[in-house]
Amino acid sequence: MTSSISKLSDLLSEKVKNTNRVIEENLSSEEAPIIGDIASHLIKSGGKRIRPLLTLAASKLFDYKGSKDTFLAAAIEYIHSATLLHDDVIDRSEIRRGLKTANIVWTNKYSVLVGDFLFSRAFQLMVKTQSLKIMKTLSDASAIISQGEILQVGIERKLHVSQEDYLKVIKGKTSALFSAACQAGAEITEASETHIKALRDYGECIGTSFQIIDDLLDYLGDESQMGKNRGNDFFERKITLPIIHAYEKSSEAEKKFISRIFKKPKPNHHDLNDLLEVLENKESLLYTKNQALTWSERSIDALQIIESSEIKTLMTELAKEIMTRTS
Amino acid sequence: MTSSISKLSDLLSEKVKNTNRVIEENLSSEEAPIIGDIASHLIKSGGKRIRPLLTLAASKLFDYKGSKDTFLAAAIEYIHSATLLHDDVIDRSEIRRGLKTANIVWTNKYSVLVGDFLFSRAFQLMVKTQSLKIMKTLSDASAIISQGEILQVGIERKLHVSQEDYLKVIKGKTSALFSAACQAGAEITEASETHIKALRDYGECIGTSFQIIDDLLDYLGDESQMGKNRGNDFFERKITLPIIHAYEKSSEAEKKFISRIFKKPKPNHHDLNDLLEVLENKESLLYTKNQALTWSERSIDALQIIESSEIKTLMTELAKEIMTRTS
Repeated sequence: MTSSISKLSDLLSEKVKNTNRVIEENLSSEEAPIIGDIASHLIKSGGKRIRPLLTLAASKLFDYKGSKDTFLAAAIEYIHSATLLHDDVIDRSEIRRGLKTANIVWTNKYSVLVGDFLFSRAFQLMVKTQSLKIMKTLSDASAIISQGEILQVGIERKLHVSQEDYLKVIKGKTSALFSAACQAGAEITEASETHIKALRDYGECIGTSFQIIDDLLDYLGDESQMGKNRGNDFFERKITLPIIHAYEKSSEAEKKFISRIFKKPKPNHHDLNDLLEVLENKESLLYTKNQALTWSERSIDALQIIESSEIKTLMTELAKEIMTRTS
Repeated sequence: MTSSISKLSDLLSEKVKNTNRVIEENLSSEEAPIIGDIASHLIKSGGKRIRPLLTLAASKLFDYKGSKDTFLAAAIEYIHSATLLHDDVIDRSEIRRGLKTANIVWTNKYSVLVGDFLFSRAFQLMVKTQSLKIMKTLSDASAIISQGEILQVGIERKLHVSQEDYLKVIKGKTSALFSAACQAGAEITEASETHIKALRDYGECIGTSFQIIDDLLDYLGDESQMGKNRGNDFFERKITLPIIHAYEKSSEAEKKFISRIFKKPKPNHHDLNDLLEVLENKESLLYTKNQALTWSERSIDALQIIESSEIKTLMTELAKEIMTRTS
């Protein structure tokens, strides 16, 4: 994935630079300097900034000449950061991107409130685009995101959840913002409704693929590259696609075995290894990877109606490379 | 206060009814019914809905004939409710409006996420007003609110905080939304910039008075009427105006005494009584009441440039009645 992200960043280097400036400039608050400390801790900790890059790419795809895309891209990154701050409180996470999380360094109180602040700042930046269409796209997306997170809490430890219901969780917590990032990037341009819809679909499908690979990496990944601990989802009792698949494919006896592992009050690494063995037996990681591939292909299909260009090629490449990401 | 609120509600009864309908209709989520349960628990628990009423009154003051004021008023109530959900998580509150708080009934996770959801819904409702001016007013207010809450966490247990710094906290956590509620209510009408500013000032001053009376009631109020426990602020280590005043007026020895009470790991009702005695000696509750009166008078002054009308009379009455509120 790094390759197409680097190429996109190079191609859009001026825009990326301006977006990063907007992101940094709006983090600080004279009245409450701690906001800047906390927000910077997260935002400058080396996230890939893939969502704002997609916004810039979507605008460029339709040859956008203005400067509103940078405000929009920064707003997208702020919404993303706000959800991360709140997620870490909810999941009691201790490590993100290889650093202690804000809730650990500054307490939950600050993480909740600085999340709220970033969310408000995102809407302030959106106002600068002077587009009601964009306000609608992003406020709709925000509602779907929180709804997805709420659904996710609802399925905690529920091994019998269906793949269909789990997809609703993913669409909320991840795909909605990818989709809005691409859609809004197109909406500030002269793009037709059909083209805007194509971008929305591209974003939704690539976001879904991205999240499914995330589920996979949690059981497969290299800790030093991921910046978080392997098996995190398991230790947080999160039911993700590999688990749902394995459980579906299990006999009653096997289901009881999985269930027992998930019910342990303090699961340890032996439990994780037991679970990995089940995932192996049921070929659940392979299945998960194939599902990610399907969504990646769908995202590429969505772009078919768009005229060829260097940006389009890179967006297609990005969808393929999502499959090989390691962090 | 009840009297002018009832009269305003009667005068605007059709609008109030429509606003309440918008508030209730947008609470539910088909995908995640728990959102409706949690949001209704708070929103239908008998809050005074004074902020949306101010929005409707501000619109009516300038003879607004459209229907956007109801979406706006509902959005204001949603922002308020979102901050309450997050506040209760942050303060670990257990009782609000005489009921168990959502964080106690459903856990912190849900309170954080449903707060985020209501905040997003508020922006979705604002989009329906089709006014970028309003989006700006309310996104600016939201940023100031979270900033105020962050400042408040920063002054926890800090007895030496100045009244000036404390006023910044109040302006954020309370006045900003009162102010935005009145300003935005005027902004959807044909009101002039001068009149819009008058409404913004009225809202800010009445909100400040409202919060100062809140600080007072926390030490004075009747528990059965307040719907929360007396001395709540003290037990949550919140430094409010009565305390700041008493500390300012104290000798070094007295300061040590107050400080000792606030440092206790588990303060009890004897400690509260000791503190109340200090507040009595320093006439801090009287001082607090006088400060509230000053802000109430300022809010009335702000309306001076507005032509006389029944609504204006009631808004003036409301500012006076804030002084006598008991809950």
